[in-house]
Amino acid sequence: MISQEMLALGRQGSIIRAIFEYGNRRKAEIGADKVFDFSLGNPSVPAPESVAEAIRSALSETDPVVLHGYTSAPGSMQTRSAIAASIRERFGVPSTPDCIYMTAGAAASLTITLKALVLPGEEVLVPVPYFPEYRTFIENAGGKLTPVAPDGRMFPDLADLEAKLTPNVKAIILNSPNNPSGAVYSVEVIERITALLKRKSVEFGAPIYLISDEPYRELVWSGVEVPYLPCYYDNTVVCYSYSKSLSLPGERIGYVALSPTMEDRGEVFAAVCGAGRSLGFVCAPSLFQAVAAKCTAEHSDFSVYIENRALLLSALSEYGFDCIRPDGAFYLFMKSPEPDAYAFYEKAKRHELLLVPSDDFGVGGYVRISYCVSTEQIKRSLPAFRKLAQEYGLC
Amino acid sequence: MISQEMLALGRQGSIIRAIFEYGNRRKAEIGADKVFDFSLGNPSVPAPESVAEAIRSALSETDPVVLHGYTSAPGSMQTRSAIAASIRERFGVPSTPDCIYMTAGAAASLTITLKALVLPGEEVLVPVPYFPEYRTFIENAGGKLTPVAPDGRMFPDLADLEAKLTPNVKAIILNSPNNPSGAVYSVEVIERITALLKRKSVEFGAPIYLISDEPYRELVWSGVEVPYLPCYYDNTVVCYSYSKSLSLPGERIGYVALSPTMEDRGEVFAAVCGAGRSLGFVCAPSLFQAVAAKCTAEHSDFSVYIENRALLLSALSEYGFDCIRPDGAFYLFMKSPEPDAYAFYEKAKRHELLLVPSDDFGVGGYVRISYCVSTEQIKRSLPAFRKLAQEYGLC
Repeated sequence: MISQEMLALGRQGSIIRAIFEYGNRRKAEIGADKVFDFSLGNPSVPAPESVAEAIRSALSETDPVVLHGYTSAPGSMQTRSAIAASIRERFGVPSTPDCIYMTAGAAASLTITLKALVLPGEEVLVPVPYFPEYRTFIENAGGKLTPVAPDGRMFPDLADLEAKLTPNVKAIILNSPNNPSGAVYSVEVIERITALLKRKSVEFGAPIYLISDEPYRELVWSGVEVPYLPCYYDNTVVCYSYSKSLSLPGERIGYVALSPTMEDRGEVFAAVCGAGRSLGFVCAPSLFQAVAAKCTAEHSDFSVYIENRALLLSALSEYGFDCIRPDGAFYLFMKSPEPDAYAFYEKAKRHELLLVPSDDFGVGGYVRISYCVSTEQIKRSLPAFRKLAQEYGLC
Repeated sequence: MISQEMLALGRQGSIIRAIFEYGNRRKAEIGADKVFDFSLGNPSVPAPESVAEAIRSALSETDPVVLHGYTSAPGSMQTRSAIAASIRERFGVPSTPDCIYMTAGAAASLTITLKALVLPGEEVLVPVPYFPEYRTFIENAGGKLTPVAPDGRMFPDLADLEAKLTPNVKAIILNSPNNPSGAVYSVEVIERITALLKRKSVEFGAPIYLISDEPYRELVWSGVEVPYLPCYYDNTVVCYSYSKSLSLPGERIGYVALSPTMEDRGEVFAAVCGAGRSLGFVCAPSLFQAVAAKCTAEHSDFSVYIENRALLLSALSEYGFDCIRPDGAFYLFMKSPEPDAYAFYEKAKRHELLLVPSDDFGVGGYVRISYCVSTEQIKRSLPAFRKLAQEYGLC
C-alpha cells in the first residue's frame, strides 16, 4: 500500500482549478469572449524587462559553470546580501545575509519554515479567510491548522485570537495583503496582534512565532501601508516570493527572512537549513537567484490591476454588491447576496461569470473575484454582473 | 522548542563540505596550484551551448506571462511529451506524458517519490556505498534506511539483499552509475536483482518498488551499457536530474518517470502529485522545463572527464593503488592501503591530496576521488599520489 494521505492529496480537486477547467470547456462551446473567468490568481502582466535583461547579461557575462552551479544551501552570498540591504533600506530593520535563506518560492518558504518550527501535534493559527494550501503545508510538518475568526473587515477577530492562543500554539500565519480577501491589515491591528503574542509568549514561557506570508506585499492600492512585521515583533519569519511582484510564479524563487532580533536566531536559521535539506530543496534555482539580486527594486507594471480594480469596484458598488475593502493583492472578496455562496456561484455561472465560492477559504457567504485578467474582460463582464444584481433585486 | 531533528540536520557538517573548505583555506596559505582538491562532485564542464540558445530563444519567442508562469503541477505538457518521446526512442519503453512528473532535481525526485510510496516505519533498502543524503530523504518520509552489503565490484551482494528483503521493505534505491564508487551495475546483476524483487513481491503479496536514481546515466565510459530499469521491472520509478548531463546542478531540474507498465500506475502518479504538493514544490522551474524540452538529446562535452579518468586510472594503477572499475560518473573509488580510510585520508592530506574517506558512504576502507576537476590539476597531483604510494611501499 502506498501513502493514502498523498494519494488523497494528489486526487483532491481544487475547486479553483475545477472552475478554471469548466471555463475552458465553456469558452470552447460559446466563444472565449463570452465567458468571464475570474477564478485563477495568476499574474496577468509580464515580468519587467529588467528580468530578461538580467538573464541575458548573466548568460553573456558569467561563467556557465558558476551561473548554473550549486549555490550554498541558503543561497548565493551576493543575492542574500542584496536582499538584506534592500530590507535595511526599505524597512529600517538591521537585516544581514545570515537572516536570509533563499527558497523555491512561497510554498517552499512555508513548508521549510513550518517543518523547522512546528513539532508534531502543535497548532498553527490561521486567520480566516486563508489560502487553502496552508492546511497541506501545516500537516506536512505534523501540525494542526486552527482557524481564527474574521471581523467584518476580514481582519483577525482579536477576542477569538486570544481564545485560541493556548500553550499548544507554535505559530500564527498572517497573510496581508490577503488572498482571498484583498484586505491589508492596518498598523493598529498589527500592533494589537503582536502585543497579544508578546504577552502570551511571556505567559507561556516560550516564543510564539509569527509567520508573515507576503507574496502580495508590493500589490497595494489606495496608498495604504503594509506594516513590515519584524518592526513590530522579534520572533517573525517573513516568507516572501517574487511570483507576484516580478510575475515569475513558475520560476519558483523567493526567500525566508528571519527577523534580525529573533530569539535564538542562529538555531532557527540552522533548523530552516535542516528542513530545506530534509524536504529535498538543495538550493533555490541559481539563475533566478542572480535575477533576484539584480531586481530587488523592480516590479511588474501593475497599472492593469489598478485599472481593473477601479472599474470593477465602482461598477459592483453601483449595482448594489458589497465588497470587502480591497486594499491589496488582485482579489475582490464580495458578499454573496444569499447566505449560500455556492448557490450564488451557480447563479453567477448562468451569466457566464466564474467566481470562486469562499467555503474553501474557511468562511461561507462570499465569492472571490480575481481581477488579474484583461481590462477588456472586465468591461465585457459588467452587463452580466448588472443582470446578476438585478436577479437579486439589488438594483 | 523548535524541531531538534531539523536543527541537528542543519548543523550536521558534511565531511565533503568540510574537506572542501579546508582546501580553500589551504589554497590561501600555500597557493591554489599546490593543493589537489578531489572532494566535491560538481560538474566542472559548462552546460552545452544549446542551453544558452534555448534560454535566449525562449526569452525572445515566448510571451513572458507563459514562459515564467505556473505550469501544471506535473509539468508542462510540451516538456513531458518531449521526455516521454525520448524515453520511447532511447529505451523502447512505451512511456507517455502521464508517466512523467517534472521536479526540481534529483533530491526533489527522491523526496517526492519516497513520501508517495513509503509508510512510517517501513524500510528502504540501499546498497552500500551510497550517497549519504539518502538517509535524510528516507527519514523525511518516516522510513528507515537498511543498507545492503556490497560485493567486491561494489555491486549489491545478492545473498545480503535476499536476507534483507522482508515484508517490511517498501522499496530499494539503486544508483548506477554509482556515487561514490563509479560502478555501473551489469545487465546480469540487474536481471538477478529484479528476478529476486519479483519473487519476493509475489511471496509478500505486495509490490516492492525499485527507485532508480540515475543522474549519472549519460556519464559512462569504456562502452558499458546502463540498463534502463523499467525494461526489467514493472514497478520502477526513475528519478532523473539534468544536473550532471547538462551541467545545471543549481537550476534544480529533473523528473520522476514511472514505468508505463507499473501496477496501479495512476494511483502512484496521483500520490507523487500529492507528495510534491505536500512538500511545497508547486511546479518545477518553468524556464528550465522549456530548456529540458529542447535539450533531451544534448549533453555537456564530457571529454575532460574522459581524459581525467584515463590519466588518473593509469597513474594510480602504475603506483600500485587498487580502484573499483570506474565505468561511470566522475568518481574513482580507491582502496585505502590501510584499513582505516580516515587515517589514509590524513596521510594523503599531508601531500595536499584531498580525498574523501568512504565511511560516510556506508563502507570503510576506501576513498572517493572526484575527477570533475581540471586536467591540469590531475597532472600536477600525480607526483603527490606517487609519493603517497611510496610511503605505503606500493611502488
